[in-house]
Amino acid sequence: MDRQDPKRGRLLPAPENFLGAPGQARRRALGNLIAGGAALLGARALHAAGAPADPAHLPPNVPPWSQVLGQPVGANPYGVPASYEKNIIRRLSPGLTTTKHSSVAFTPLQNLFGIITPNGLHFERNHNGRPDINPYEHRLMLHGLVRQPKIYTMEDLLRFPSVSRIHFVECGANTAMEWGNPAVPTVQYTHGMLSCSEWTGVPLSTLLDDAGFDRAKAKYILAEGADAASLTRTIPIEFALDDVLVAYGQNGEMLRPEQGYPVRLLVPGVQGISNVKWLRRLEVGDMPWNTREESLQYSDLMPDGSSRQYTWIQEAKSVITSPSGGQHLLDKGGYYEITGLAWSGRGRIKRVDVSTDGGRNWRTATLQEPVLSKALTRFRIDWTWNGDPALLQSRCIDETGYVQPKMRQLREVRGTHSIYHNNAIQTWAVDAEGKVHNVQV
Amino acid sequence: MDRQDPKRGRLLPAPENFLGAPGQARRRALGNLIAGGAALLGARALHAAGAPADPAHLPPNVPPWSQVLGQPVGANPYGVPASYEKNIIRRLSPGLTTTKHSSVAFTPLQNLFGIITPNGLHFERNHNGRPDINPYEHRLMLHGLVRQPKIYTMEDLLRFPSVSRIHFVECGANTAMEWGNPAVPTVQYTHGMLSCSEWTGVPLSTLLDDAGFDRAKAKYILAEGADAASLTRTIPIEFALDDVLVAYGQNGEMLRPEQGYPVRLLVPGVQGISNVKWLRRLEVGDMPWNTREESLQYSDLMPDGSSRQYTWIQEAKSVITSPSGGQHLLDKGGYYEITGLAWSGRGRIKRVDVSTDGGRNWRTATLQEPVLSKALTRFRIDWTWNGDPALLQSRCIDETGYVQPKMRQLREVRGTHSIYHNNAIQTWAVDAEGKVHNVQV
Repeated sequence: MDRQDPKRGRLLPAPENFLGAPGQARRRALGNLIAGGAALLGARALHAAGAPADPAHLPPNVPPWSQVLGQPVGANPYGVPASYEKNIIRRLSPGLTTTKHSSVAFTPLQNLFGIITPNGLHFERNHNGRPDINPYEHRLMLHGLVRQPKIYTMEDLLRFPSVSRIHFVECGANTAMEWGNPAVPTVQYTHGMLSCSEWTGVPLSTLLDDAGFDRAKAKYILAEGADAASLTRTIPIEFALDDVLVAYGQNGEMLRPEQGYPVRLLVPGVQGISNVKWLRRLEVGDMPWNTREESLQYSDLMPDGSSRQYTWIQEAKSVITSPSGGQHLLDKGGYYEITGLAWSGRGRIKRVDVSTDGGRNWRTATLQEPVLSKALTRFRIDWTWNGDPALLQSRCIDETGYVQPKMRQLREVRGTHSIYHNNAIQTWAVDAEGKVHNVQV
Repeated sequence: MDRQDPKRGRLLPAPENFLGAPGQARRRALGNLIAGGAALLGARALHAAGAPADPAHLPPNVPPWSQVLGQPVGANPYGVPASYEKNIIRRLSPGLTTTKHSSVAFTPLQNLFGIITPNGLHFERNHNGRPDINPYEHRLMLHGLVRQPKIYTMEDLLRFPSVSRIHFVECGANTAMEWGNPAVPTVQYTHGMLSCSEWTGVPLSTLLDDAGFDRAKAKYILAEGADAASLTRTIPIEFALDDVLVAYGQNGEMLRPEQGYPVRLLVPGVQGISNVKWLRRLEVGDMPWNTREESLQYSDLMPDGSSRQYTWIQEAKSVITSPSGGQHLLDKGGYYEITGLAWSGRGRIKRVDVSTDGGRNWRTATLQEPVLSKALTRFRIDWTWNGDPALLQSRCIDETGYVQPKMRQLREVRGTHSIYHNNAIQTWAVDAEGKVHNVQV
């Protein structure tokens, strides 16, 4: 490999189209590297990174950017990513929904590290567009089975005792296309309605106490958004009294507009739609509301024709984000780090196993600390690809002992007409040329 | 308080000038609220948030943004904050340095929640401006006391096994102005060279093994940046073999340009300058290099005229971020949450105490989990302001038992000519009108 004149073309982003899966340039670049050899580091078959140093190479030669003053400090009072990262963006649904006001923009999981999703890349799912809310005029009403109905301003909410916690949010329809044959090529589209942030807000239990809710009769809460959809969802009171937040902060700053600015519900471990954005009303009641979004939508059509309703919890699930669909491994015999994400709506991830032969043999991956309840957990495991076709899978187990199911197991119970709550094991096939494809086994 | 016609003027940002301390609007807004009474919630004197609901109020009335379709999904492939948050920005040094290419932009700590700093608001300190580096052409050289010198491309670095960890970065000169009389009015300027992110990269120890460093002779590493300053710093080999990262990821995405894109050193717990940005060279040696940035600069002038050199570690420190300088409490007898940040370069924070009477009486604050090593820790404690002048202080203790010193204690040892490593207890004075000032006691 000529390092003096690097083959820049190999790293250029793919054309901006759906099958080209732009935004994978960086991670695919990992696979594109043709190694110069193999170095052993302890028991690890490490990629032979780093050519021997040559005096003709940089450094000690001085690159152009070392020879001129850079941009002044504070040139961006609010910073933005490097121009070279311009293809690392949310991408619109490839056709799941019909209008841009009721659509999805997916998080580029294949390009992300760690567990925190930067706010600019948090997935977006709206039902009637994203409202532009004036926080000075916004109000949150709390009424129903309470002693004293309340109307809170944002000032009020910011005055209450607060808590911060790192939690994932996953749309109930994440991985929906995979109920049928694999239809989308990349992890951004198979699993990208998934993000994780440090959320800050007021415990909902604090507000319920403030209004004096009826402890004997209260069984459910209705949450309503201020968007044009006036989206409504029922939340069991047990959740409300446990860890639900009325959240205004996301990764240190105020919520982003598409995440519910200025205030949203955060229902840890529960499907995205229950985390009602642009929250304007909370009603305490004694039975579920059976709203449009929990009857016509967001219910599961079962094999016997019945409808599974109120499926709140996102069960344990994992996915390998690299190598993943659309990437290309060129380094036969080379080291690859297999990495991905695991999460459970019921608590902490206990273990993640990884297979490279379609589930016949499993090895246990390393979990990145801290492993937090109802948060994404990053896993990693070493792999030396021998150049033969491989089937990559991850399988997680949460602290309740629940084991992530195979697609076949899920279909046996749920049939093939579901849209929601597909938490099956994902398979990525590496072909003999190193190209990675979305398959089902 | 008329909720139908909220007094919006009270929430408008202050004029854009230094003393006006813009960007404090939101948190100051907390203090501006005149409560309608007091409600007791358990043992807590909760602010009487939320007026009784009135049918004339919103909701159930329908605000304008509920009556029209909002912005389409994906309108921002890479999202940005709400327009109402436009004053929550990094702010340039009020005169500490002379040119914009060798200056500081401070993080608005008074406006932030939790422990994660959003990438757009991470503090910025450069010595010769921010270079615009082409990641395809960037190289990292590793040489000196090694068996095989190496030159790594970014592709190489991304191929190595990775780790992610949440750590703070604090400039050694943070709180520098406070060695004299209080000179700056807000926590953004007193403590804003402080941020915290989830960093991802390759352990430096992995690269040292890859190059085969000389275990018998290697005592120090020199790290050099690719910026116009070619900034260089010495790192002890013990740090390098412990938890130092060659980092390319920040809060899930690639480093921001002002944070060292495409690769930087991350030396957990060590002063900011050692976390060399735009990293282009690492040299293994047997003695410290005594570079410009560790002799003329970044050394402490002691009372006896000697110079304290190589003061790597950021000792335990804490600060109250709300209420803090420039904010205004209007609610006599009202509830306020006192909140702030604590951190230690030596490990975990064990305890934070808070005083409202200038250090005569202390109460122990609640620490937000997870409490992580060498990371910011958010603390909170309830406070009902009786309307009398108050002196707010926080004092932290880390897991080594080290107690954050008073300013007087620090001066006894270090004199008054220092610039660096001021980790003294910060005092905010609340006057009888509720205005908060930076004072020393």
